[in-house]
Amino acid sequence: MKLAGTLGLIGCGHIGGSLAKAVRAAGAVGRVVGFDPAWDAEALSSFCDEIADTEGTAVAQADLVVLAVPLRGIAHAVARVAPFLKKGAVVTDVGSTKQGIVTACEAILGEQARFVGAHPLAGTERSGPMAADPKLFAGRLVFVTPTSRTDKDALALVEATWEAVGASIRHIPADLHDQIMAALSHLPHVAAYGLVGALYERGVGDLCGMGGSGFTDTTRVASTRPATWVDIFLENRAALLPLIDRLVHRITALGDAIAAGDADKLEQLLAEGKHARERILGA
Amino acid sequence: MKLAGTLGLIGCGHIGGSLAKAVRAAGAVGRVVGFDPAWDAEALSSFCDEIADTEGTAVAQADLVVLAVPLRGIAHAVARVAPFLKKGAVVTDVGSTKQGIVTACEAILGEQARFVGAHPLAGTERSGPMAADPKLFAGRLVFVTPTSRTDKDALALVEATWEAVGASIRHIPADLHDQIMAALSHLPHVAAYGLVGALYERGVGDLCGMGGSGFTDTTRVASTRPATWVDIFLENRAALLPLIDRLVHRITALGDAIAAGDADKLEQLLAEGKHARERILGA
Repeated sequence: MKLAGTLGLIGCGHIGGSLAKAVRAAGAVGRVVGFDPAWDAEALSSFCDEIADTEGTAVAQADLVVLAVPLRGIAHAVARVAPFLKKGAVVTDVGSTKQGIVTACEAILGEQARFVGAHPLAGTERSGPMAADPKLFAGRLVFVTPTSRTDKDALALVEATWEAVGASIRHIPADLHDQIMAALSHLPHVAAYGLVGALYERGVGDLCGMGGSGFTDTTRVASTRPATWVDIFLENRAALLPLIDRLVHRITALGDAIAAGDADKLEQLLAEGKHARERILGA
Repeated sequence: MKLAGTLGLIGCGHIGGSLAKAVRAAGAVGRVVGFDPAWDAEALSSFCDEIADTEGTAVAQADLVVLAVPLRGIAHAVARVAPFLKKGAVVTDVGSTKQGIVTACEAILGEQARFVGAHPLAGTERSGPMAADPKLFAGRLVFVTPTSRTDKDALALVEATWEAVGASIRHIPADLHDQIMAALSHLPHVAAYGLVGALYERGVGDLCGMGGSGFTDTTRVASTRPATWVDIFLENRAALLPLIDRLVHRITALGDAIAAGDADKLEQLLAEGKHARERILGA
């Protein structure tokens, strides 16, 4: 079902390209106009009907504008395209943190256009438009963070777009979103990057080719592009830093119990963690 | 090909049971005599020809004795069965650490029997004889840790037994084995248990049902039985504690760079970790 005439896509990497491919496959938009100076026209041709030379021309005809640029660039991009937006255009993003972006974008756009914050939970280990996958969002969860200022029709369009590509929607306040992501996504990345970083400091010469499935799984998220995670960690630092303190405290407690040979304390610490994991996963 | 007449199996849980099923399927042993008071006869009947009432009777006729008991029980079990072993019997284990076990078992057995330390890298999230899987070791790596005292024929029998069930063998000194396992298995478990433990301290009420694939993978190894890891952490504490210090140091450095808003430092720390991971995995 056609939801919007023209989709203006700012940022045509893995997430943006996958969304464009998916909405086209679903017949949800009439045409896609893309802008991304990082890639040549050929890379974008599989999901763009038109490739714009400027951000302004990419959004000028758009009913729905999707910002799929790196996190720290989202509010800047919204500020740059704002003067070129059609009246009534709906603007949304795919950023991994929401509070700062939603506040900034609502302030920038004011009454001029309608902003809806969104965050699809879809893998980021792959990158670039060549990796664009129209099935990326099928069965995935998309957090949508409406505020008291969010327009109902704009919210409905963003939700319908994600549902058209197979995702399911969960409404959540932006600050709660950032707290939950800090706990379930950003802190696991800190733990995984900390783990492989500790092995970097140790030296890996004798470890090459020895990693089993436990190592591979535990560190999988540390295979992501570092620049992506620099942005996320810094953007969500308020929620993340207290959790990093807890992580350091907890690992230190494990080390102390091991050093003391305190089997009872150690078993308690491990059992508490296993229990927390099972509750989080609903096991 | 038949390698041994009788296999005496002390400990008939997931690993022991899987090995017994696999050697029977491969025709590598004539019969399996099992001992494990934790399980009733019915649970063991799918892989034991005979269930012994005592450790002594389990090993009395055995050409090959496999200790598949929890780590801290291995040397104790060897001491208990030593008086009952046939002359020339080969004794081996499946423990996740090797230096302490090999030293203790060689000292206990002396010239009376022939000990070979071994450690199959196979998952431990499942447990109990009901989960015994004859294909568990197919394509897996088994570390074997011969010393200057190891008998060549005994070593050959242990290796042939593992190869008969589809595993491949790597010789490694016991101390180096423990260093590598500390880095690639035990430290990842500390990181994962530390992560879910930090979330336990935070409280998980708002996180239930929200865990995505990144969280699930990063913490998978923290779903193991806590008692297993209490044993391993304590047994390998000498190799593990310096690495836990490095892990705490590295996570603290990540937190400091995030708190300082130092994007360059943060990107360097993440890139170093990603690079170490790729070298370890041979990517």
